[in-house]
Amino acid sequence: MTNIQLDRIENEALRNRVVTPEEAASWIGDGMTLGLSGFTRAGDVKAVPFALVDRAKENGFKVNVFTGASLGSDVDTLFAEAGIVNKRLPFQADPTMRKSINAGDMFFVDQHLSHTAELVRSGAMGPIDFAIVEAIAVKEDGTIIPTTSVGNSSLFATHAKNIIVEINMAQTPLLEGIHDIYEPGKQGERGPIPILKADDRIGAPGIKVDPELIRGIVFTDQADSPSTIVQPDEETKIMAEHLLSFLRKEIELGRLDETLAPLQSGIGSVANAVLHGMIDSEFKNLEVYSEVLQDAVFDLMDAGKVDFASCCSITLSDEKMKQVFGNFEKYRDKLIMRPQEMSNHPELIRRLGLISINTALEFDIYGNVNSTHVSGTKMMNGIGGSGDFARNARLAIFVTKSVAKGGNISSIVPFVSHVDHTEHDVDIVVTEQGYADLRGLAPRERVPLIIENCVHPDYKKQLWAYYQEALERGGQTPHVLEKAFSWHQHLAEHGTMKMDKEVVEAK
Amino acid sequence: MTNIQLDRIENEALRNRVVTPEEAASWIGDGMTLGLSGFTRAGDVKAVPFALVDRAKENGFKVNVFTGASLGSDVDTLFAEAGIVNKRLPFQADPTMRKSINAGDMFFVDQHLSHTAELVRSGAMGPIDFAIVEAIAVKEDGTIIPTTSVGNSSLFATHAKNIIVEINMAQTPLLEGIHDIYEPGKQGERGPIPILKADDRIGAPGIKVDPELIRGIVFTDQADSPSTIVQPDEETKIMAEHLLSFLRKEIELGRLDETLAPLQSGIGSVANAVLHGMIDSEFKNLEVYSEVLQDAVFDLMDAGKVDFASCCSITLSDEKMKQVFGNFEKYRDKLIMRPQEMSNHPELIRRLGLISINTALEFDIYGNVNSTHVSGTKMMNGIGGSGDFARNARLAIFVTKSVAKGGNISSIVPFVSHVDHTEHDVDIVVTEQGYADLRGLAPRERVPLIIENCVHPDYKKQLWAYYQEALERGGQTPHVLEKAFSWHQHLAEHGTMKMDKEVVEAK
Ligand SMILES: CC(C)(COP(=O)(O)OP(=O)(O)OC[C@H]1O[C@@H](n2cnc3c(N)ncnc32)[C@H](O)[C@@H]1OP(=O)(O)O)[C@@H](O)C(=O)NCCC(=O)NCCS
Ligand SMILES: CC(C)(COP(=O)(O)OP(=O)(O)OC[C@H]1O[C@@H](n2cnc3c(N)ncnc32)[C@H](O)[C@@H]1OP(=O)(O)O)[C@@H](O)C(=O)NCCC(=O)NCCS
Repeated sequence: MTNIQLDRIENEALRNRVVTPEEAASWIGDGMTLGLSGFTRAGDVKAVPFALVDRAKENGFKVNVFTGASLGSDVDTLFAEAGIVNKRLPFQADPTMRKSINAGDMFFVDQHLSHTAELVRSGAMGPIDFAIVEAIAVKEDGTIIPTTSVGNSSLFATHAKNIIVEINMAQTPLLEGIHDIYEPGKQGERGPIPILKADDRIGAPGIKVDPELIRGIVFTDQADSPSTIVQPDEETKIMAEHLLSFLRKEIELGRLDETLAPLQSGIGSVANAVLHGMIDSEFKNLEVYSEVLQDAVFDLMDAGKVDFASCCSITLSDEKMKQVFGNFEKYRDKLIMRPQEMSNHPELIRRLGLISINTALEFDIYGNVNSTHVSGTKMMNGIGGSGDFARNARLAIFVTKSVAKGGNISSIVPFVSHVDHTEHDVDIVVTEQGYADLRGLAPRERVPLIIENCVHPDYKKQLWAYYQEALERGGQTPHVLEKAFSWHQHLAEHGTMKMDKEVVEAK
Repeated sequence: MTNIQLDRIENEALRNRVVTPEEAASWIGDGMTLGLSGFTRAGDVKAVPFALVDRAKENGFKVNVFTGASLGSDVDTLFAEAGIVNKRLPFQADPTMRKSINAGDMFFVDQHLSHTAELVRSGAMGPIDFAIVEAIAVKEDGTIIPTTSVGNSSLFATHAKNIIVEINMAQTPLLEGIHDIYEPGKQGERGPIPILKADDRIGAPGIKVDPELIRGIVFTDQADSPSTIVQPDEETKIMAEHLLSFLRKEIELGRLDETLAPLQSGIGSVANAVLHGMIDSEFKNLEVYSEVLQDAVFDLMDAGKVDFASCCSITLSDEKMKQVFGNFEKYRDKLIMRPQEMSNHPELIRRLGLISINTALEFDIYGNVNSTHVSGTKMMNGIGGSGDFARNARLAIFVTKSVAKGGNISSIVPFVSHVDHTEHDVDIVVTEQGYADLRGLAPRERVPLIIENCVHPDYKKQLWAYYQEALERGGQTPHVLEKAFSWHQHLAEHGTMKMDKEVVEAK
């Protein structure tokens, strides 16, 4: 151990607890529940999980893996390949793990990201046997300073029987001071959360734990995995333009001004493109109150457009990571990083009145949204924070390209094959075709708007035909139940949702 | 006008604005939006709506009707029969209006009851041309004292271009002082809502408006419509027992104590039966934080079990109304009546950690709940506050009898025909067969619990068969899409969901 490393452990007694990842992994037994740091590839632990996977080669065991959100560093891939996960929650985004989940080889609990904390705190889920969290440093009093995400780390560390800390020397020490760790307390015993603006600081700079519970400290020196973000293309740029013109209309109507309202934008390329589209806009003095900060937020800071950003993780592309963390002084005082319970808290989302932009896999003619299940059954990633935001935001916006898989899938269908966000929670839907503002509209008023403004021309006629037939049956929300999923069935049988002969033949 | 009546209008100038209902109704023009008081049959206006219906016999017009929730006094029936409603929101529960809605003769916007206020306040819905609200009295400064509900009355009155007040001499004046009117302010400009306990008083005893906006005052003298509640029967008693044994288990596990947590219980006979079931229980010092108070809450107060109840309306049976309002001094200091935005606010529901009990029409093998649409298309009442509560409660409980229509409908189906509450929001489901605790469970873990504990014996085999077939297709949430609604289709074609020959023949 070098002196530079030792300096990161201020508490003398804890310096004796430095161990190898292998030793730390050896403490973990069959059936245990692990609470891992990590949110959207940022601030995940990068040593003990690998040692655990190695151990699995010798003797079989299963653990439950709770995290903030998705992990980087291929941890979920390796966990899935090793077959050591009994239950995973609340989110993942790993292709290999996705296969295991969909094959029924492991359980996945797809949760609102703000809900996990309440369930652990109340004792309804848990106990957490080991919290394993990445850190910049451990302070004299046992305070753990997180790195590029907070996620559920403070929850896990304060509710675990044992804690393993991974001090990552590759993370900039300048991160210290940007975290704001706040514990609301038990339901029924807590007060209001005193955040009134994105930059309000209400908690501590680290996670205070009893040093006795820190059973081991491991050193690592490995950067976060870069984000997998796709840069804006022609279509996402057009979608961003539609969305910006909607926001301009809200300003014209006096409902917003040029500072808009605190922005939340979900993972994915469209959300990133929308923020990018603001760089050359008239919008100014913007604030961000989001989960993940992607590249675009830092571009907006550079352009002088964003004044402040609150988040629970920073996930950047390779190049942007170097730029941002290489010049972190420039950004430090414009950032706060909070536990995901705070970034996603209904109380705060509603009070601040966020403009929230998330991506849908598909939505239906009435505005119900599917964010998670391909053809109603196969898990993609999970609902993540999209429900926390959509239900409570000032403007709940969902974006998606109107078609997928080369046009063989229409993202607007008669009946979504899985519902994550009900029509009650969806204000605006946007595709590259246009947008539909659904606020205050009855189901039957929504249909023409959605079909005419959002659906790809190849599917318009087919969708009108479904709706016309449904209308003959009547109802508040007309449907032809036996044909509600016929588009998905057609896709399964013929590789395309296109049923309209003219359209198919014209191709 | 009698002196007793005049005494109810403290402001001299306003005494000159007393008019007949007919005159008030004559001010209302085609295309206007009306904001009416009234929540679950309580505190609705009882004169101007009738005059409006009369006017419609002479000349046709359409208005938009916004309320708190459902109206009594047959107002919705008459509105629907007269065909004068263009758009109705956010809730109704009237058989005649339901028919108009489902026939497509009028628009119905089915909203979370806490959302209407944000949409009106932001200007996304409205403007309100006339607020028409029932009152006990109007004060010197223009403060309007509501009656047996607050609902959206304060929202409408403070956002309307004109106000018409109906002073109802049949409502006990002792209601004055139990209301707590609080306006949170605009999103982005507001602070925390300072309610920490059900009995915290944070606002004013009435709705403060500019007296100039009160265009007319009408006198009425008619009691609220009694509730339509059905007294507990054998089955609802059994359901209550299941639910109480679940709560006892939570106490054993140390997650609750005998005071439980503030209770919310939705409309309907089961919710009422559950509360009734607590009268002879060990639970004590209970608090209620709900929308509507039904008979059972007052029985629990009489039994010394409930210490305090916060609500936004009081809806009682005929007999109970006489008892409660005839002895209102006994209950006054145990009650607060709030705007529905406060009774249903996510911030408060989550902070207080409510135990929330609402009724489902149907739920599916994964725990998704349909509260509103019969066979996916025909509106029953609306989602009401059930979403506000379920998403944010400590325990989101849904109850329903396992079968309906003499056993021809199973309330547990392969795939709900409409989703109001997703599996992420549903903690416990209860039928007369038993309960299933779904917290922390993956979809595939939920199915056996739900089928074995909640489904009626007549449908168990049939539901297992569906799930077995679905399992062959795999996925996080296995389904056979082409058969997902086959039970509903079978019902439409054969009058029953029973497809299992053995079961059908054994009958
Ligand atoms: C919905 C979600 C999967 C979209 O991701 P994205 O990367 O922005 O969108 P893409 O258009 O690239 O689509 C991803 C994949 O889904 C496919 N897809 C898109 N729509 C589809 C549909 N209706 N049916 C089937 N597949 C579809 C795409 O073809 C693509 O497949 P590929 O990976 O094989 O190329 C993603 O946003 C998500 O997981 N959301 C839920 C969580 C969330 O919203 N969190 C927000 C707070 S962080
Ligand atoms: C769901 C809801 C309609 C149930 O009402 P209820 O009076 O407790 O329940 P009942 O068992 O009497 O059912 C009402 C009717 O629905 C029918 N029904 C019940 N389940 C059904 C199903 N799965 N399919 C079709 N019809 C069904 C019943 O047969 C009954 O019909 P009837 O009026 O012709 O006799 C009602 O609770 C509601 O509107 N809920 C949504 C709003 C809400 O939850 N608010 C909570 C906060 S106040």
